Amino acid sequence: MFKADTLYFNGYIYFTAFKKFVYGYFSVKGDRILHLGAGEVPDDVKYENKTDLGGKYVIPGLIDCHMHIESSMITPKTFARVMVENGVTTVVSEPHEIANVKGLSGVLAMIEAGRGADMDIFYAIPSSVPSTDAEHETTGDIIDLDAVKELIKHKEVICLGEVMNTNGVLNNPRDRQLEFVNYLKENRPDMPLEGHVPRISGTDLNHYVYTGINSDHTDHGYDEFMHRMMNGVFYQIQYITAKEEIAKAIEEYSLYENVAIVTDDTPPSTLMEKGHLNRVIMYMTELGMKFENALYCATATPAKRMHLYDRGRLTPGMLADFCILENTDGIKPLQTYKNGKIVYDRAEVNSYADCKGAFPKDFYETMKLGKLSESDFDFKEDKPNGTYTVNGLQTVYESTRTPKFSQKAEIINGIVALPEGTNKLFVFERHGKNGNVKAALAGGKCVVKGGAVATSYAHDHHNLVVLGDNNRDMAVAANTVIDNRGGFCVVSGGKVIAQCRLEVCGLMSERSPLEVAKDIEAVEEAMRSIGYESYDPIMSIGTMCLPVSMECKLTDMGLFDVPNSKFIPIVE
Amino acid sequence: MFKADTLYFNGYIYFTAFKKFVYGYFSVKGDRILHLGAGEVPDDVKYENKTDLGGKYVIPGLIDCHMHIESSMITPKTFARVMVENGVTTVVSEPHEIANVKGLSGVLAMIEAGRGADMDIFYAIPSSVPSTDAEHETTGDIIDLDAVKELIKHKEVICLGEVMNTNGVLNNPRDRQLEFVNYLKENRPDMPLEGHVPRISGTDLNHYVYTGINSDHTDHGYDEFMHRMMNGVFYQIQYITAKEEIAKAIEEYSLYENVAIVTDDTPPSTLMEKGHLNRVIMYMTELGMKFENALYCATATPAKRMHLYDRGRLTPGMLADFCILENTDGIKPLQTYKNGKIVYDRAEVNSYADCKGAFPKDFYETMKLGKLSESDFDFKEDKPNGTYTVNGLQTVYESTRTPKFSQKAEIINGIVALPEGTNKLFVFERHGKNGNVKAALAGGKCVVKGGAVATSYAHDHHNLVVLGDNNRDMAVAANTVIDNRGGFCVVSGGKVIAQCRLEVCGLMSERSPLEVAKDIEAVEEAMRSIGYESYDPIMSIGTMCLPVSMECKLTDMGLFDVPNSKFIPIVE
Repeated sequence: MFKADTLYFNGYIYFTAFKKFVYGYFSVKGDRILHLGAGEVPDDVKYENKTDLGGKYVIPGLIDCHMHIESSMITPKTFARVMVENGVTTVVSEPHEIANVKGLSGVLAMIEAGRGADMDIFYAIPSSVPSTDAEHETTGDIIDLDAVKELIKHKEVICLGEVMNTNGVLNNPRDRQLEFVNYLKENRPDMPLEGHVPRISGTDLNHYVYTGINSDHTDHGYDEFMHRMMNGVFYQIQYITAKEEIAKAIEEYSLYENVAIVTDDTPPSTLMEKGHLNRVIMYMTELGMKFENALYCATATPAKRMHLYDRGRLTPGMLADFCILENTDGIKPLQTYKNGKIVYDRAEVNSYADCKGAFPKDFYETMKLGKLSESDFDFKEDKPNGTYTVNGLQTVYESTRTPKFSQKAEIINGIVALPEGTNKLFVFERHGKNGNVKAALAGGKCVVKGGAVATSYAHDHHNLVVLGDNNRDMAVAANTVIDNRGGFCVVSGGKVIAQCRLEVCGLMSERSPLEVAKDIEAVEEAMRSIGYESYDPIMSIGTMCLPVSMECKLTDMGLFDVPNSKFIPIVE
Repeated sequence: MFKADTLYFNGYIYFTAFKKFVYGYFSVKGDRILHLGAGEVPDDVKYENKTDLGGKYVIPGLIDCHMHIESSMITPKTFARVMVENGVTTVVSEPHEIANVKGLSGVLAMIEAGRGADMDIFYAIPSSVPSTDAEHETTGDIIDLDAVKELIKHKEVICLGEVMNTNGVLNNPRDRQLEFVNYLKENRPDMPLEGHVPRISGTDLNHYVYTGINSDHTDHGYDEFMHRMMNGVFYQIQYITAKEEIAKAIEEYSLYENVAIVTDDTPPSTLMEKGHLNRVIMYMTELGMKFENALYCATATPAKRMHLYDRGRLTPGMLADFCILENTDGIKPLQTYKNGKIVYDRAEVNSYADCKGAFPKDFYETMKLGKLSESDFDFKEDKPNGTYTVNGLQTVYESTRTPKFSQKAEIINGIVALPEGTNKLFVFERHGKNGNVKAALAGGKCVVKGGAVATSYAHDHHNLVVLGDNNRDMAVAANTVIDNRGGFCVVSGGKVIAQCRLEVCGLMSERSPLEVAKDIEAVEEAMRSIGYESYDPIMSIGTMCLPVSMECKLTDMGLFDVPNSKFIPIVE
């Protein structure tokens, strides 16, 4: 009745209750932990096989409770293989990228595509699809209350994903996301309601949390962090928001139950070169957290937050998800086990090759655009010949913030002549909904010279975005992305100098993550080589058309003034 | 949209995340907390009314996650009134006493009787009814898997109650309680599975916890406590198990998430004179816990353990369950609020008078026995005249442990002549099932001289138990309990010298808790006055017939050898 399959002995095991490594042993029976103890193995422990840990360290499998698989541009099962290399055995992914292209069916296809993966993949209900509403942008589909009601029937769906429209939550009692929140509070009170709460604090934060949404993963300093703790907000800290003052506060006030370490977005290049949640954990230790405490915030704490009662610690009855480490200087597993079975062994070559065709056929045909001609890139404005003020985006190097840009330009025979040093920014609706096309000027640092960049990975609607200074290169870039069924393309002097194929919904590729990472690096390099100056070219061009990002953005419906939530004329 | 009903300001509020009192304010809107902040109230906080806390202290309503209402011998709504006086606003009660009398209908009647109470009453599924099995004792009813399936449909039922048969769990794969455990793991993985794990440790404890049962509230020293922590066992500490070495261990290892402070059984006299959970919290501080930390273990921690996500801390969106205290030297609420409404005000007289008739009619008619005659108390043994070894219970002052007792006695005309200094112990099946009657000897400290004691409150089957040294007094005591429809009676020299009527199932009374407490004290005093020497007379006589309590007990089926789980002859 209580005979273990395998006994692991002579190692240092992470004892979660004490946040300490203790010399001892544990055993696995089926998919669960059976025995656990300090010191030598007593005679009354029965087992089939035994493994000598040789003084190595054992930690629970890492749990990432806020992230987006699509950001890594690879598909769930392949992504899972990369995760177990990094010690991650459970993630909660918020699939709003694919939901913007394919709606409910997109989320269900992600669930299907992840079945049989090397780790457990849970999902958050994408609460913000579209990011604003159907009057401001055209998406492939939307997530409405009916979709929410369908999603909660699936055991993989365990929380409401980040509610991003703080303005709506605070000021509009009929806000769509509040509708979801109230429905779930009534019908699924067990579901965590995840937030996205930049800036707001004080009484507004009280009001926001009062609605029942009580987590945040946006950037804050010490005061705002402590204010969130006071309000009972669960804080998810990631690489870009991690800072010493917060690491120290967590230690000073023992906030290990209130803070989880997460990844949010991990681009393919970072993923394959620097790692994932393991990297963020080690970064938190560099900033002042004790390793054992940071580990707790990436195992026990996220499990509790997501009400996953069967994991997060290595005690009898829990799932046997664990990693064996050489030492605690880093988290580079020698082996990773999921449900008691080995899913990664550093001694063996990991293959990524057999996850093709995991999605329905139509998910590979989402670029619903015909071949574009050079004339499609004429910046048309139906005005008498003359000089006009033409509007667009002012881009900067250090962030994705784009204030309104205005410049005098000639219009000749209904076509805007591009002023020196500027680019044309085009958005082509690509979901086969209405064929909208809109163009505006782009100025500042993130422009190219003698070339073009095109992408289907344009947050969050993911229409086809093309930036450039001449029709020929723009047409080549756009058609390459269309031919590739999605992705990125950089063109210079009529030639493709870099591309990355993302054939699944124009967001992800089923190719090897190594290839995808290599391609994305090449795209970034190529963009820089033709003058595009940004701390993160992929994120920069990907957010030029996101109408919830500050401050002036172009959608397929026009030039959008985000703070005032209204369209503004492109030519005055 | 965010205007509070009432603002409370100028007080010290318990900030759960920091386990600290902070000077500040909070507000209530409907049944929830809306605002919370440190310092003075900002201008943007909107409210209808305000209350000056005058520098007083505010704590979250206390939560007791392991207790039995029946132990206090009063009914749910009345019990709730006493609870809010003591600062308790939520309890999780395990109703196995009433379930032994009335089965499923008993638990459902408790739920009904508690509707509209001043606090929230949740229930644990009684997992151990009967305590052993139908071959060892006759109960009024049983809880089987069908009853479990019915109970989990009720939102008030939130966990599986203490699984007491550790022997069955460890050695019998077909154990009834394991059947419940496995059913719930499959069908209600969100339900905590509560344990009762005396003695066992080491590998056996691994095995016990592996089943999924992962809490304990029995008595342990430092090593066993730490061993439970290592195994991921949630420990519930109560007054009788509290000790300095454990209080210190909780502080040393910050085990605030792993330990809850609970009450388990609180007799009426203790309840009305010394308090409830508030008393245990203060006792833990006397033993070395910081007040703020002990408070956390009786608010935030039990809420998490029981997956009650809407309470346990005073933050926006949580239920407005709180107490206002003069100071933190003790927990004697000036006012207690539940769901934002005041339910107790020390300045007003608390009435207990209007909770009569809360149960179905047949719950008041559970003493299914006719009037007993003196001859019914002849200790009959069908043997030829002579001297025999007669067996029974050896009672002691300091515990409920009763080893086997044997003494030579004369049998004349088929009736045992009571040896000097001993008593007769009778058990009459009183549920109308089979009319079983059994008698044995009782020796040692817990016997009476020239009198008798009778009770219907006999763990767990609650048959009629009568102890005495003469037929007349035993008949008077028994008939008084029967006439009272249950309770306790003490008789001396043919006269009733104390009694307590427990008319609901022979377990509880709908009278004022003050009267019930007074009566029970009188019963204890009367028992002592006729020679009954025990640290706790009520618990002592109430466990003489409990076949899971060590070590030799009398049921309506005979004299039971608990360690060997078999009946032994009364006369050899």
